[in-house]
Amino acid sequence: MDGHRISMLGTGLIADFYTMTLHGQRGRDQVGVVYSRSEGRGSAFRERWSIPESTADLAAAVNHPETDVVVVALPNFLHEEAVGLAAKAGKAILCTKPLGRTADEAKRMLDVVEAAGVFGGYLEDLCYTPKTLKAIKAVQDGALGDVTWVRSRETHPGPHSAWFWDGRLTGGGAIIDLGCHCIEIVRNFVGKGNRPVDVMCHTDTLVHPIADEDNAVALIRFESGAIGQFEVSWTFRGGMDLRDEVAGTHGTIWLNHFLRTGFEMFTAGGGGGYVAEKAETSAGWLFPVGDEVSELGYVDMFSDMFRAIDAGGAPQETFYDGYVVNAIMDACYRSAKTGQWEGVELEWRGGSTARIASTPELYDGLVVIKREILPDGRHKLILKDEGSGDFTDRVVAGA
Amino acid sequence: MDGHRISMLGTGLIADFYTMTLHGQRGRDQVGVVYSRSEGRGSAFRERWSIPESTADLAAAVNHPETDVVVVALPNFLHEEAVGLAAKAGKAILCTKPLGRTADEAKRMLDVVEAAGVFGGYLEDLCYTPKTLKAIKAVQDGALGDVTWVRSRETHPGPHSAWFWDGRLTGGGAIIDLGCHCIEIVRNFVGKGNRPVDVMCHTDTLVHPIADEDNAVALIRFESGAIGQFEVSWTFRGGMDLRDEVAGTHGTIWLNHFLRTGFEMFTAGGGGGYVAEKAETSAGWLFPVGDEVSELGYVDMFSDMFRAIDAGGAPQETFYDGYVVNAIMDACYRSAKTGQWEGVELEWRGGSTARIASTPELYDGLVVIKREILPDGRHKLILKDEGSGDFTDRVVAGA
Amino acid sequence: MDGHRISMLGTGLIADFYTMTLHGQRGRDQVGVVYSRSEGRGSAFRERWSIPESTADLAAAVNHPETDVVVVALPNFLHEEAVGLAAKAGKAILCTKPLGRTADEAKRMLDVVEAAGVFGGYLEDLCYTPKTLKAIKAVQDGALGDVTWVRSRETHPGPHSAWFWDGRLTGGGAIIDLGCHCIEIVRNFVGKGNRPVDVMCHTDTLVHPIADEDNAVALIRFESGAIGQFEVSWTFRGGMDLRDEVAGTHGTIWLNHFLRTGFEMFTAGGGGGYVAEKAETSAGWLFPVGDEVSELGYVDMFSDMFRAIDAGGAPQETFYDGYVVNAIMDACYRSAKTGQWEGVELEWRGGSTARIASTPELYDGLVVIKREILPDGRHKLILKDEGSGDFTDRVVAGA
Amino acid sequence: MDGHRISMLGTGLIADFYTMTLHGQRGRDQVGVVYSRSEGRGSAFRERWSIPESTADLAAAVNHPETDVVVVALPNFLHEEAVGLAAKAGKAILCTKPLGRTADEAKRMLDVVEAAGVFGGYLEDLCYTPKTLKAIKAVQDGALGDVTWVRSRETHPGPHSAWFWDGRLTGGGAIIDLGCHCIEIVRNFVGKGNRPVDVMCHTDTLVHPIADEDNAVALIRFESGAIGQFEVSWTFRGGMDLRDEVAGTHGTIWLNHFLRTGFEMFTAGGGGGYVAEKAETSAGWLFPVGDEVSELGYVDMFSDMFRAIDAGGAPQETFYDGYVVNAIMDACYRSAKTGQWEGVELEWRGGSTARIASTPELYDGLVVIKREILPDGRHKLILKDEGSGDFTDRVVAGA
Repeated sequence: MDGHRISMLGTGLIADFYTMTLHGQRGRDQVGVVYSRSEGRGSAFRERWSIPESTADLAAAVNHPETDVVVVALPNFLHEEAVGLAAKAGKAILCTKPLGRTADEAKRMLDVVEAAGVFGGYLEDLCYTPKTLKAIKAVQDGALGDVTWVRSRETHPGPHSAWFWDGRLTGGGAIIDLGCHCIEIVRNFVGKGNRPVDVMCHTDTLVHPIADEDNAVALIRFESGAIGQFEVSWTFRGGMDLRDEVAGTHGTIWLNHFLRTGFEMFTAGGGGGYVAEKAETSAGWLFPVGDEVSELGYVDMFSDMFRAIDAGGAPQETFYDGYVVNAIMDACYRSAKTGQWEGVELEWRGGSTARIASTPELYDGLVVIKREILPDGRHKLILKDEGSGDFTDRVVAGA
Repeated sequence: MDGHRISMLGTGLIADFYTMTLHGQRGRDQVGVVYSRSEGRGSAFRERWSIPESTADLAAAVNHPETDVVVVALPNFLHEEAVGLAAKAGKAILCTKPLGRTADEAKRMLDVVEAAGVFGGYLEDLCYTPKTLKAIKAVQDGALGDVTWVRSRETHPGPHSAWFWDGRLTGGGAIIDLGCHCIEIVRNFVGKGNRPVDVMCHTDTLVHPIADEDNAVALIRFESGAIGQFEVSWTFRGGMDLRDEVAGTHGTIWLNHFLRTGFEMFTAGGGGGYVAEKAETSAGWLFPVGDEVSELGYVDMFSDMFRAIDAGGAPQETFYDGYVVNAIMDACYRSAKTGQWEGVELEWRGGSTARIASTPELYDGLVVIKREILPDGRHKLILKDEGSGDFTDRVVAGA
Repeated sequence: MDGHRISMLGTGLIADFYTMTLHGQRGRDQVGVVYSRSEGRGSAFRERWSIPESTADLAAAVNHPETDVVVVALPNFLHEEAVGLAAKAGKAILCTKPLGRTADEAKRMLDVVEAAGVFGGYLEDLCYTPKTLKAIKAVQDGALGDVTWVRSRETHPGPHSAWFWDGRLTGGGAIIDLGCHCIEIVRNFVGKGNRPVDVMCHTDTLVHPIADEDNAVALIRFESGAIGQFEVSWTFRGGMDLRDEVAGTHGTIWLNHFLRTGFEMFTAGGGGGYVAEKAETSAGWLFPVGDEVSELGYVDMFSDMFRAIDAGGAPQETFYDGYVVNAIMDACYRSAKTGQWEGVELEWRGGSTARIASTPELYDGLVVIKREILPDGRHKLILKDEGSGDFTDRVVAGA
Repeated sequence: MDGHRISMLGTGLIADFYTMTLHGQRGRDQVGVVYSRSEGRGSAFRERWSIPESTADLAAAVNHPETDVVVVALPNFLHEEAVGLAAKAGKAILCTKPLGRTADEAKRMLDVVEAAGVFGGYLEDLCYTPKTLKAIKAVQDGALGDVTWVRSRETHPGPHSAWFWDGRLTGGGAIIDLGCHCIEIVRNFVGKGNRPVDVMCHTDTLVHPIADEDNAVALIRFESGAIGQFEVSWTFRGGMDLRDEVAGTHGTIWLNHFLRTGFEMFTAGGGGGYVAEKAETSAGWLFPVGDEVSELGYVDMFSDMFRAIDAGGAPQETFYDGYVVNAIMDACYRSAKTGQWEGVELEWRGGSTARIASTPELYDGLVVIKREILPDGRHKLILKDEGSGDFTDRVVAGA
């Protein structure tokens, strides 16, 4: 079985998760070289994950002759340079989220990848959690009818690394860190061909003494009339809250990815040890997660990426998707400032989607607003007279 | 034990719930007369609940010599007339939600009650659920620190009675029906003295062929900086979804009032019977509720009202609260039209609330952004240099 | 509204819960006098609950001229004396669980009550929780088909009062304290006319340095073939675990009464306060209960008792039920010693129940073991040839 | 990356799950040949999973020159023959559960593997679910103190294939099918060196017209005093119920593997499609599972097996473990007949485990039975006088 040989750029938490995934279980793809600005962090990472080489030379890591795939796991402000180098080297590129700090930056990365004709995969893990993949499929199969509303929520007490808190390096606060996940989850549920039209966003900095937002809520209006809603926070208490809700005309989906997944533990303490990412306590009631790299989507994400590379096709999440996400985040930041709905400005490639609509049922010339089945099998109808605008109810024999 | 003698105005679903509560368990307060426009519905209701008298004469019901408390359980457009009559009669008045169809109407009811010097209780049951009461107390006791965000969600497939669907009679759609609950729940958690400043609201009519909104999402900005968020829908599938979430600087509360309360049943069918309000199916996995009138707050609500009447004091929920709720809903409808944040216009009696704030901890002259406890007991600090704006992390000995 | 006037015997935790229930909300029944062996505890209780009188004279409390109902909320070893006095006084008697320390003791109490012709109610609150009442009704309505198995679990870290730990005063350990609840819950689900035939029980003392069991598991075999299973423990960590599970031929019920009821709170601490009975911590993730006296069944229990008294009928839980429970617990203790199934010895009044049975469906002369619906609508049958004993499967057109 | 080349023996549901796991994601191990008694099923399986060869010749499949690992995924009565052939061929052997139909059969398989010196892995997937692995580690790290009780429950409406229902081919009913999982889960939590001493088991055939048990409950007593409890059923309604509970002196663990894992969906129908193994309905509230082969342990199981082969060591689950499980099941069947505790007869290799014990804390010469922290910080002690056997309580200053 031929696998891929990877250059891992970066040695932070996300590079650890990526490499844990690639080197976990029985994978055939291996990291061949790791890059860090710091020699010490590079060699520690190399030893931690049994990687042949480490280097502090970015170009050397990218151009390594055995490497065919470059994974960009660097802080946001370093994405563009790394992507440029890898595109020039003709390597397949997988870039962590968010793609850019702004839509402009993301668009330049998209352009450079397309110009070079190399593979560009957007490492949006939370769109690949096993629950999300199965839920997206259920929605695409029609289990929910037309999607009317999606809520995606990601909140925790704040990131672990210093650079995350510096908006100059990241492009913003909780939106740029967490909102990017939520937005792409929402897009997968409402349909990627469903154009994001405009955005209303509220941000605030309530707890941490920083310049960027530590809390935000936003609404995204899609062409079909569906509403996406995200809530992100760096001030949540109790661990990491990762939940999605989808409402449709015929059904509902609720996903809980982290704090309530069927694993509950009480301990009086003394057993120590790691509970789960962003867990706040190690005694009392705890809610660990089974296999984090699987539950958080890393396993399916890399499988999709490598299969797409092998097949010469596109992965589920592309650089174009990353660019759309950045465009929506840009609109969020504008809206937070103006207090108004702001249009999403982007080069749209997704076609158009019809407005959610249904033809009302008629009964005796009246519009049926609602039909309830009574315990005795008869049906209760709420009826509207379109002429007078009056509403009545009527109980009729069951169908 | 002396109880109260009640005139029940109305015979719909809510009048049933109220009377079930009053006549349930071992209550000392009794409905003495019921009013309905329809003689037939009145006498059916009288028999169903063993009430001495029924009448189709509104004034007679209100002025009944044995009655000391009038409960207004009528459609929205009849509230004002009933409240006026009861105030004139000098009776204590308990009025169902929403108080009015608009803040103007609510204000007139508030004024007439205050001018007459009679008791005015606002029957906002969902602020009285046992879980909500205990959660409010925990918040007031400081268990969550400063409240930063409250989400209140009430969604179901749509109301049972025809008049609910006619905005001319109700004042609106899902907001006027369900949003009034959410708004007052939010106010209880952020503090009733915390002025609602402005509102951003999105509404749409996605499924039902009606003129008013069947879906709405809104943000309410309070003086402290706290955000209230409500989601209401008449198109939700799966039953009645009643959930509240409260986030604070030191804690989190999640309440589920209906679909996930520790009662889960699978049936292949055949057992028939009532499951719970707005349940959609009677086979498969079902989620009944234990004692609905207790879980939905009716029991504690009436206890609070009668205790307040007996003590000559104010209940938790007053006509003034009902007026504030209407004022916020008015702002929601305005915002839905203008697409902008709209100020909440009301005669505010609640004083002022300070902005959420904390004094940052300093370490070596740097601002501590975050403090994490590592497995070995040491602390990892994220630090900010206020001069340069740079962030760094440092691991130090534990406290 | 005429209510009842109660003599409350005892001032411990259970007397507090009872009085909180009676004096809570808008009840018409009131405690008129409280008895405690200790003058101090009696007067403290009197003040706590605004009771007119307290006394250290048991007979005086029972014979109080205004009292028509005596509530026995005393330690187990004092039940028989109190019941005897109250029966002699001709008062209605409500006795807390367990009725006796042994079936013999319980039988004597049953006899004395029946001989005196007074009302004897067994205060088995957990058979009256709103969830349990609704679940029992669903089972009686056939939603689960024939009940095959019931699990009832009650575990916590151990009782609060010293006398509970002394088997000489109580009659045993965790079984006598907690198993009595579980047994009667099981009986309600399998049907009270379903005779408990025999019992297999394992007990052990694993944690606490006491003579009686701090852990027990038992199986109860009923005449229908249904199995009741209880698990009780005084060594459980994490709060009070109160769960019931019912399996039937057509359905399943899961009840969670305490730790997972839709109320979840995380607090970093500082808000203090009462969480729930037997809660172990006041920080981290906590799981409070809404209205404990309602959720634990006290409200519906007293309503049923007083209604039965008023109507001259029998309550759901009678002294006879208490006696059956004691007979089953006696068999448990015997079985734990002999390591064998032990018969339940009692004067059975419940009639007989047929064995769970169904007539197998036939297909082409073969017995249908199982029928599954395939995604394409066809049915897959597992078939048994009764002659050869061979099994085959066959896919056929759907019904 | 060198992987393993596998002969898959069998083409039923379990062979599908195994091959889905091996060929899923980015695995380096591949099935090279599949064996079925039926040419047609063999070639269908070959095509379904892109396997180079299929054959109806068992020996040919086992002896295939490229094969180094033989996976036995055959019905129970064919395990011994297949294991014998593979041992003779000197191939590593992975055998599905249960190892044998009886302990004798299992022992012979163990012996033949040990005599041949080949690798023998026991494919007990449910001991490898990510949740279980993490929970076992927490227990081994001391988070729960001494384990006192483990419940493992596996119930569903009955197996899909005809041969499962024929006790002559399988060795029994629900115990041999499902109990084997539960027993080994229990052993992992109480410790594999903790000898299973004796067993009490109740079985019954309540619903299906078969000769073997469709329901069973058993208690397993371990040398430490810990109790294992399993509940298995082929008559459960509502899907597949897979839950484990672990109680220890310092903590509690609850695992839910299937029906409540944070994925909840309501659909009015129409979306069709696969929900989860043993799901009963495709409309209403459904509870799908994210990635079944991961959640059910297959992924981690094969990783452990291949890593152990590569390292020349033992996997977590060995043929010896399979033999122990069979010995416990044998004792269960004996106990179900005799109605008594039956000793577990086996060649024990696990050493001995001390009885759960703790040294009681003393206070003023009295034994401390329980210590509770009061809201005011003081401690309430329940104390026992070892001389008199009397219990008292005392409130003292906090530690």
